[in-house]
Amino acid sequence: MVERRGARELPSEGALIETFRRAFATKDPRVRVGIGDDAAVLELPSPLVWTIDDSVEGVHFDRRWLTIGQAAGRAFEAALSDVAAMGAKPLCALSSLQVPASATASELRAIRAAQRSAARRAKSPIVGGNVTRGPGYRFTTTLLGHVKYPVLRSAARPGHELWLIGPVGMAGCGRCWLERGATPPKGALGRAITRCVRAWQEPRARVEDGLSLDGRKHSAIDVSDGLATECRTLSRQSGVRVELDGGALRAAFDPELLLAAEKLSEDPLGFALFGGEDYALLASGPARTRPKGARVIGAIRRGSGAVLVGEGRARLLRGGHDHLAS
Amino acid sequence: MVERRGARELPSEGALIETFRRAFATKDPRVRVGIGDDAAVLELPSPLVWTIDDSVEGVHFDRRWLTIGQAAGRAFEAALSDVAAMGAKPLCALSSLQVPASATASELRAIRAAQRSAARRAKSPIVGGNVTRGPGYRFTTTLLGHVKYPVLRSAARPGHELWLIGPVGMAGCGRCWLERGATPPKGALGRAITRCVRAWQEPRARVEDGLSLDGRKHSAIDVSDGLATECRTLSRQSGVRVELDGGALRAAFDPELLLAAEKLSEDPLGFALFGGEDYALLASGPARTRPKGARVIGAIRRGSGAVLVGEGRARLLRGGHDHLAS
Repeated sequence: MVERRGARELPSEGALIETFRRAFATKDPRVRVGIGDDAAVLELPSPLVWTIDDSVEGVHFDRRWLTIGQAAGRAFEAALSDVAAMGAKPLCALSSLQVPASATASELRAIRAAQRSAARRAKSPIVGGNVTRGPGYRFTTTLLGHVKYPVLRSAARPGHELWLIGPVGMAGCGRCWLERGATPPKGALGRAITRCVRAWQEPRARVEDGLSLDGRKHSAIDVSDGLATECRTLSRQSGVRVELDGGALRAAFDPELLLAAEKLSEDPLGFALFGGEDYALLASGPARTRPKGARVIGAIRRGSGAVLVGEGRARLLRGGHDHLAS
Repeated sequence: MVERRGARELPSEGALIETFRRAFATKDPRVRVGIGDDAAVLELPSPLVWTIDDSVEGVHFDRRWLTIGQAAGRAFEAALSDVAAMGAKPLCALSSLQVPASATASELRAIRAAQRSAARRAKSPIVGGNVTRGPGYRFTTTLLGHVKYPVLRSAARPGHELWLIGPVGMAGCGRCWLERGATPPKGALGRAITRCVRAWQEPRARVEDGLSLDGRKHSAIDVSDGLATECRTLSRQSGVRVELDGGALRAAFDPELLLAAEKLSEDPLGFALFGGEDYALLASGPARTRPKGARVIGAIRRGSGAVLVGEGRARLLRGGHDHLAS
């Protein structure tokens, strides 16, 4: 019904929900009732992990630098990343969409397509949600997952190695490039910049990597706000000292990050520590249990606080991202 | 930490989450990990019902007529009402809060207190959530519940009685009174008006009534948008004709609604059909299975559409509330 209306005319709530119901239809046997009743009805294993995340236009995303489909996809991946960081297998999702009066049918199609793709990648059907109007787009995603031994932020222990799983810094570098508004050159540098920009525009939650962790041995947190903040959180919640080794972290950087950051005259370490939105996993565990793909970037010690070592004198990690700061 | 700051200064995200973590602490043995990790970890029975609902300042509520605590409480009850309408027992909740830059510490305290009260009444601890800033307050609540035989919108059958469980029209009448801005008089009329205003400001989801329904025999939907819309939805989703009997509905009206509507020179039937936000339950089932407290207000027939009978000639029910309409 959306298609037959003018491009700038919003379909009715009922018609819009119907388009989502069709787009998100699933044959998953765990879904007894999907979109369309007062609530979804599900047959799920226990224990469950459960998270909710929001992405608000003008706060978490800016449409100068993202298509609306990219914004919708990122919002889903950010919630999914919380499930990944618990070491859990995603099961299903609800999506709540806030739509501004300026919304167009093609924007709504792009949102549907992006959410459907993200849900399929995660094998997590969207089984319900809500639609409201409001002063801008807003994507709220709540996900359920299953895990036998949840991987907690409070489980880092002295003697653990500190691990990075997945690249960090690229998303922050990509966003910085977009903010400076320059056109990427051709060649290797251009490809490096494009990859950083894509890392920010189209992140992917590390679900498979999360499943390689085990809550009886490992701790983990996802890198949404930058490594500085995540190291401090791990330290506080586990009651340990987190030592991040700057040299080891630099050695883990993607060569394309080095290239793109150099062109911006920025230290890639800054993007890794404070950029955020990478959705890598910061984890810890005994050396003998290190999963494939995990890079050692430091160690867990007795004590408190998060410190950067191996870059001259040890420095306390501060700063990072406060979602309420203006 | 909130208390020690200036009244108009917003605490940091971490400090705010800490106040919520303390306020919502629970000893519920089903909650293995509550607020503070990437996701909550829960041991829950299956099948589950799962819903999400949003309440956006300037769209769903207006602070001229509601305290911020009332707005937060209503938002929780609206989501809870979806669980009730499935005949499910609520289990636990996540709460996502959008906070404007103008927020004060006392507003945040009132929100916490209202959400904690609503969660306690529902025996549904708030086990996690999210905090973001944005252009106004916004409350998003997602709830999980447990039900053996979910009560569906698609289960109305020809021969069923149509039931109303709980009062309708009072919330719409109360809101109308607030919009007109008059001061309620003293005496019986004043008390009637105050009760209608309270019905709108402080609704209560009908969880116990929902539990009296059985998905093998009954259909149900909650009255959030007004009886006209809910009758049409029941008709469409069950493939039946819903006959709403105006006389029987009028006989079910609370005497205080009649008094308050008369003073406004409004037909209370209009508030019941189009007012919404009552969170009564509209249900159906065979006469011999009618639960205590259910009033017969019509019948389910073969055919299609929702009609109002017993008020002169039968009329198709139209109109109601579209959440996307401006």
